[in-house]
Amino acid sequence: MVMVDLITKKRNGEALSKEEIDFFVKGYTEGTIPDYQASALLMAIYFQKMNPEETAYLTEAMMHSGKVVDLSEIKGIKVDKHSTGGVGDKTTIALGAMVAACGVPVAKMSGRGLGHTGGTIDKLESFEGFSVELSIEDFIHNVNEIKLAVIGQTHDLAPADKKLYALRDVTATIDNMSLIAGSIMSKKLAAGADAILLDVKTGSGAFMKELNDSFELAKEMVAIGSNMKKNTIAVITDMDQPLGCAVGNSLEVKEAIDTLKGNGPKDFTELCYTLGAYMLMLAEKAATYDEAYKKIEETITSGRALETFKNFIEVQGGNSSYVDDIELLPKANYVTTISSEEDGYIHRILAETVGLSALLLGAGRENKESIIDLAVGIKLNKKVGDRVSKGEILAEIHYNDEGRLKEAIAKLKSAYEIHTTPVEKRPLIYGYVKEDEVKKFN
Amino acid sequence: MVMVDLITKKRNGEALSKEEIDFFVKGYTEGTIPDYQASALLMAIYFQKMNPEETAYLTEAMMHSGKVVDLSEIKGIKVDKHSTGGVGDKTTIALGAMVAACGVPVAKMSGRGLGHTGGTIDKLESFEGFSVELSIEDFIHNVNEIKLAVIGQTHDLAPADKKLYALRDVTATIDNMSLIAGSIMSKKLAAGADAILLDVKTGSGAFMKELNDSFELAKEMVAIGSNMKKNTIAVITDMDQPLGCAVGNSLEVKEAIDTLKGNGPKDFTELCYTLGAYMLMLAEKAATYDEAYKKIEETITSGRALETFKNFIEVQGGNSSYVDDIELLPKANYVTTISSEEDGYIHRILAETVGLSALLLGAGRENKESIIDLAVGIKLNKKVGDRVSKGEILAEIHYNDEGRLKEAIAKLKSAYEIHTTPVEKRPLIYGYVKEDEVKKFN
Repeated sequence: MVMVDLITKKRNGEALSKEEIDFFVKGYTEGTIPDYQASALLMAIYFQKMNPEETAYLTEAMMHSGKVVDLSEIKGIKVDKHSTGGVGDKTTIALGAMVAACGVPVAKMSGRGLGHTGGTIDKLESFEGFSVELSIEDFIHNVNEIKLAVIGQTHDLAPADKKLYALRDVTATIDNMSLIAGSIMSKKLAAGADAILLDVKTGSGAFMKELNDSFELAKEMVAIGSNMKKNTIAVITDMDQPLGCAVGNSLEVKEAIDTLKGNGPKDFTELCYTLGAYMLMLAEKAATYDEAYKKIEETITSGRALETFKNFIEVQGGNSSYVDDIELLPKANYVTTISSEEDGYIHRILAETVGLSALLLGAGRENKESIIDLAVGIKLNKKVGDRVSKGEILAEIHYNDEGRLKEAIAKLKSAYEIHTTPVEKRPLIYGYVKEDEVKKFN
Repeated sequence: MVMVDLITKKRNGEALSKEEIDFFVKGYTEGTIPDYQASALLMAIYFQKMNPEETAYLTEAMMHSGKVVDLSEIKGIKVDKHSTGGVGDKTTIALGAMVAACGVPVAKMSGRGLGHTGGTIDKLESFEGFSVELSIEDFIHNVNEIKLAVIGQTHDLAPADKKLYALRDVTATIDNMSLIAGSIMSKKLAAGADAILLDVKTGSGAFMKELNDSFELAKEMVAIGSNMKKNTIAVITDMDQPLGCAVGNSLEVKEAIDTLKGNGPKDFTELCYTLGAYMLMLAEKAATYDEAYKKIEETITSGRALETFKNFIEVQGGNSSYVDDIELLPKANYVTTISSEEDGYIHRILAETVGLSALLLGAGRENKESIIDLAVGIKLNKKVGDRVSKGEILAEIHYNDEGRLKEAIAKLKSAYEIHTTPVEKRPLIYGYVKEDEVKKFN
């Protein structure tokens, strides 16, 4: 097999065979196929697309390019959750505890990565002493004991995807549904889950800005999951404004704890209940969505989710007293606010712009070497649809360093669109995709 | 300027600016833009095409990526000729002398390259002592004195094209009109000609197999020439069967000399007269095509073209007595033949297949290290349209080595299509393209 023939074939609009895709992924991972041929193929794929079979072959090849985690020693159906990412997305922290409290094993591999704020691991490090440096044995043991554990993503999880993603990033070949879907799913499948719940974000702060694209991505990923015999559901949820009110690592942890205590923001709580209900169904812990939803809700009213969360923090070395007294979590030295300059209704709070403001404060990583300030971030006092008066506080800015504060304030202000006419709130959940069903709400 | 933005722009179907194309060509030539970004851009160009302005910018940038030869010390209008290549194409050898004999300066840069037979330089090395290792001063001097000189192509002629072509070859991005046209024209323009005649081949042995594609390529190249203020004409000519009867280095030289003596094959002689006539018009040595054609014809009947050729060989160190006695040219040790297995008419002689047969005999280079056997090759006794009887000789195979002889014979036989029904000869000249005129004959 010769790589240039594969490029020609795809360029001409033909489908690649399983053998050809395996040849490419193996050769590229091992370095026998050079970057310049890989990028030519990726650009040909951008234009000619891949069919569902090719997408499945690519995903499987990337999944098997490194170690596939064996979680078979964990009892029960292991349901993994993945979010396509957004601003203020602290879902894993609260949701993991809720689902675990229902007896579903939550064995979470998580990363740090670049972004407006840190990843789940960074956020959890707001707890003094907390560590994700577990052996795989301890990880499995913890899940069996308390149903919830988080471990750092191993380096050899789908290395082909890692290498290809880096190449796509610098060759304008990110934007292809098959490649995006394959990238996400190969990592999830390599992480050893039995079933997968996908939270596909849509809107200004999401990777997919358009609702139709979000549904398309959801369909691609669910098709891959089905093809690999892993029960997969995708829920399409809003990311036009930030999720909840907190953006920033320890601020988000506080909000997640508030939510576990029953005092969370309405949208974030609702999202956790919805995703949790689908996860319970995937774990076969409930026959209907309504039953599942009630079970999840009950983990909050009973306090069991909070209890599970405390256990989890403690078992992984964290100071769990922070859960009872969230004031102990990292706190910024200074707080300033921005206020509305007019009377009116908030029509938009651009999620990505809020995220960039948080990044300027130091909440996220601009490059791999950046050091995160866990304490800084933004708290929204108002959300889309709310009425505001001139002078009323829109948001708090928690900061330690005045360096780029002015820039961050200006950025945050620019996220708001306020008009005199009332506006309807955006829906939180736009629909879902299952193997045999695509449901779009309203 | 960031390369990934250029890739994105082209990928999205936008035109690149002159500055962007300059940035790419300069960066790629200097190595600051890596292969993998260049190949992604090339594949995006394959799908989104380039408009005439972009094509001109690319050509100009590649032309200026190395040294542009200054031939201003040569008196008169210097007309360069380029053929897109084919089998049995010894045109430069005979045509150069004809045009020079009309007083047009022919300052030819030529290469060796890979192919079924050697390049023009290889062929001319059939003359003992002949050399193209001239200083640029001697080259100019010779052209001024005898109107004809051939020099080896310098390494720094359009180096961007050289590097890009090598990349295109392994990334399935050869087949794009703008890239093909830009590649050819950047070298011609860098070689310092005042006007350019393009022989665009069409048919099974040509780079462009389809007549329409050949016209499209011709139009692209003429547009580039016009854009660069170089008078350019493209003639579209047949390469479905080999040109003339000889395929192989010294065999082709013999045929070229025969032609200069007025005894050449009809098609080859006609091609030389036609191309020569256009070259005289480009050189402003004739007002009409008919006048130019007569002038070229007269160089043969008068013997002046042959005389010019002898001078040229001698001045460049070659033994010009070979011109009078062509039997002195390199000759293979053995000759065998293939014969017709049936009565009928020759419908096709696939040029590329004949070329591959010659390559198997050792007439060309399979890779850069191959050593050419100047003596070997194929002589066709019959051409398309000819009637043949069973047992009649179709072609002679001149060989030195039995190594791949059997394979070469089988290959040559497979080039023929013989049927019982008569067939019309294919046209030799399909039309031409000038700045303001596209003419299709038939």
